[in-house]
Amino acid sequence: MQHTLNQTHDPAARSWVASANAQAGDFPIQNLPFSVFRRRNVDETFRGAVAIGDQVIDIAAWASRAGLNGIVGEAARACTQPVLNALFSMGPSAWRALRHALFAALHERAPSEDRAAIEACLIPQSEVEHSLPAQIGDYTDFYTSIHHAANISKLLGMNGVGANFKSIPIAYHGRVSSIGISGQQFRRPAGQIMLPGEEAPIFSPSRKLDYELELGIYIGQGNAAGEPIDLDQADSHVFGLCLLNDWSARDIQAWEMQPLGPFLAKNFATTISPWIVTMEALAPFRLPPPRPDADGKPLPYLDSDRNSTTGAIDIQLEVCMETSRHRAGNLPATQLSRTSFKHQYWSIAQMVAHHAVGGCNLRPGDLLGSGTISGPQRSEAGALMELARNASEPVTLGTGEQRSYVEDGDAIILRGYCEKAGFARIGFGESRGEVLPAKRSR
Amino acid sequence: MQHTLNQTHDPAARSWVASANAQAGDFPIQNLPFSVFRRRNVDETFRGAVAIGDQVIDIAAWASRAGLNGIVGEAARACTQPVLNALFSMGPSAWRALRHALFAALHERAPSEDRAAIEACLIPQSEVEHSLPAQIGDYTDFYTSIHHAANISKLLGMNGVGANFKSIPIAYHGRVSSIGISGQQFRRPAGQIMLPGEEAPIFSPSRKLDYELELGIYIGQGNAAGEPIDLDQADSHVFGLCLLNDWSARDIQAWEMQPLGPFLAKNFATTISPWIVTMEALAPFRLPPPRPDADGKPLPYLDSDRNSTTGAIDIQLEVCMETSRHRAGNLPATQLSRTSFKHQYWSIAQMVAHHAVGGCNLRPGDLLGSGTISGPQRSEAGALMELARNASEPVTLGTGEQRSYVEDGDAIILRGYCEKAGFARIGFGESRGEVLPAKRSR
Repeated sequence: MQHTLNQTHDPAARSWVASANAQAGDFPIQNLPFSVFRRRNVDETFRGAVAIGDQVIDIAAWASRAGLNGIVGEAARACTQPVLNALFSMGPSAWRALRHALFAALHERAPSEDRAAIEACLIPQSEVEHSLPAQIGDYTDFYTSIHHAANISKLLGMNGVGANFKSIPIAYHGRVSSIGISGQQFRRPAGQIMLPGEEAPIFSPSRKLDYELELGIYIGQGNAAGEPIDLDQADSHVFGLCLLNDWSARDIQAWEMQPLGPFLAKNFATTISPWIVTMEALAPFRLPPPRPDADGKPLPYLDSDRNSTTGAIDIQLEVCMETSRHRAGNLPATQLSRTSFKHQYWSIAQMVAHHAVGGCNLRPGDLLGSGTISGPQRSEAGALMELARNASEPVTLGTGEQRSYVEDGDAIILRGYCEKAGFARIGFGESRGEVLPAKRSR
Repeated sequence: MQHTLNQTHDPAARSWVASANAQAGDFPIQNLPFSVFRRRNVDETFRGAVAIGDQVIDIAAWASRAGLNGIVGEAARACTQPVLNALFSMGPSAWRALRHALFAALHERAPSEDRAAIEACLIPQSEVEHSLPAQIGDYTDFYTSIHHAANISKLLGMNGVGANFKSIPIAYHGRVSSIGISGQQFRRPAGQIMLPGEEAPIFSPSRKLDYELELGIYIGQGNAAGEPIDLDQADSHVFGLCLLNDWSARDIQAWEMQPLGPFLAKNFATTISPWIVTMEALAPFRLPPPRPDADGKPLPYLDSDRNSTTGAIDIQLEVCMETSRHRAGNLPATQLSRTSFKHQYWSIAQMVAHHAVGGCNLRPGDLLGSGTISGPQRSEAGALMELARNASEPVTLGTGEQRSYVEDGDAIILRGYCEKAGFARIGFGESRGEVLPAKRSR
């Protein structure tokens, strides 16, 4: 899939939806991300939407009103359902056709009847709620930031990143049932914890609850079992990206994870943002793959041309914490870190190609986590354990509070956006998750 | 859930379906396992069935014909769907009511009109095919045989089972998309392999493809996020059991699994048997938990009464291999091993209670793998790597062929049944999976 630029990337394009033209808004006419929504406090089903400015477009309603037909009509009507798997399965040409039709109808020079059809299907974002945009068949979490791997290794007193890190986009399967949409609240997990110097584990609520800043990657079209996906086709199997918080209980993880990996430490909650930013909208922000020449070439199925447009993406990311004291004092959440996805060692295309190379079948709506996104600087770390150096240097918040891990009542807010001179800002909205106290034992 | 015996366990009960009364049959009137089926070469949808002798009962058709109502009718009509999740979600009293109604109508003393209603809904098993009986939301694979853990540890030159084995029913999340029903054929997986003495991995079809003998455990009713399942309630959340082959590529696994566990080594295929044997049918074969007193007590959330009826289950299991030479010579498959599930260190109830204790929500239709089932004797090993001692002592088959791992064209057949004096035999049918050659690289 070539990420060539087209008229939807024109920074001069403006919409007749005035809020879409705001300076630092997430959802200009050049973005057009997808979600599912319903109006709050109205008895109706979830269905597909696209964001424009501070509004959502009810896509199925628009399809009826505008009398859409052909591939655009088919794609729009796939959004009638409460999950977007049917749209995902249609493939890039359908996604592109639908997005381009929306772009044309939202453009300030759109014919008045096209404008009228959409206008009747706009609902303010402030009046809607979202749910998971796909039936997620499988959720896979990767481990692809070399800075995160190096930080963790150093903090745990190990000797550098693992021998396989530069060969394999490492991944494991995660839990689907506990994936929640932004606004998710969950109880602090409990589990077995081996305290230092003890010989037997205790059962306790986690004392080392952490977040992990990640991107979520939705598979569009899948592959048949036994039929790998070539690297140069891999991006075309991706519908788009969201923000993802891979909540992690470090103390439960340390005791349980040998020999088969994390389990209860990760499966209590994963929080994702509602809007899926399409790969096409991200095209202006592609960069060459970040693998340094000194690391040599990976195996051929992972080896991409240095000039490839399927390499990195410069997505700016930030993590904020909001404690109950922030809320009580009406203070803005404290920014904990900022980084970019461009530092990630393995690209999305490499993750997809690796996932399928052994014969595993991916299905529309499968979700991949990118793995924690930490940049090269300490301030760019994607987890609190890294920022607070394994609790040795607690982070001070704007409220004066200190944190080495996430406490009850704390909310973690992830935000993301792409920005560069000559292009419109492409925003992701936010993912917000909040920790409730552990269930009291009887 | 008390596993008290009732009239459905009466060994003297006989059915008017003559084949159900055969001496060593899997499906007597005391069993009544569930699956989904359709007639082969007929354009119709999959729907729920119960096995009796050499027949299947089309449950939804029976519900209509017999005019079933109340809880039995509701449970039977839930079998109209192509997956049984709706039935699973109804809970043990509904499952029991449906099974008891079937028992009564199949009994040799059933009223003739009851008999006639079922008779019209019988289809020979030889004329049907099966598909996955549930929409599996999440698949979790456990690691609960201490004999398997000890064997693997010894073969890999490690120092005994892991420090956490006797504290935690260890588990990790597996791949749903590649779970297939008995009859599954799949290509030999390829992946990165680090050969001994080399410094860089190669990409190759696996040279160490293995099977793992397991039971699959279907969750019936789930739990809400953040609401653990008490140990003494855990069995009541299980609908029933099937056979499960957790195909594993040992060479891919060895290189990829640090630090987050197996991924491509396991996610290319998992083969399960079509029939789900209910927990009620297994009640006569319960045994006390096998944890030796010398190991002390586990943490309270895993600690069951030694006299509990929710402990072990004596399910006899066997693994057979059928190569292309067996087929060409019309020879019976070679039995590789036999064991019992009664040796498993952790019980099903303990697996379920552990899974939910941190707050993870289980959903109806979730599938848990028991982990490889190896007994204390060498001949009871549940994987070929154990039987052939890491390829140092290849197994000789009935054809004269030798095997250290599974080769192209080999089929692995799992069988299971419960048998003891004074009770009818309760069979599981079989799970058969066959390895096709790897896809040729371009």
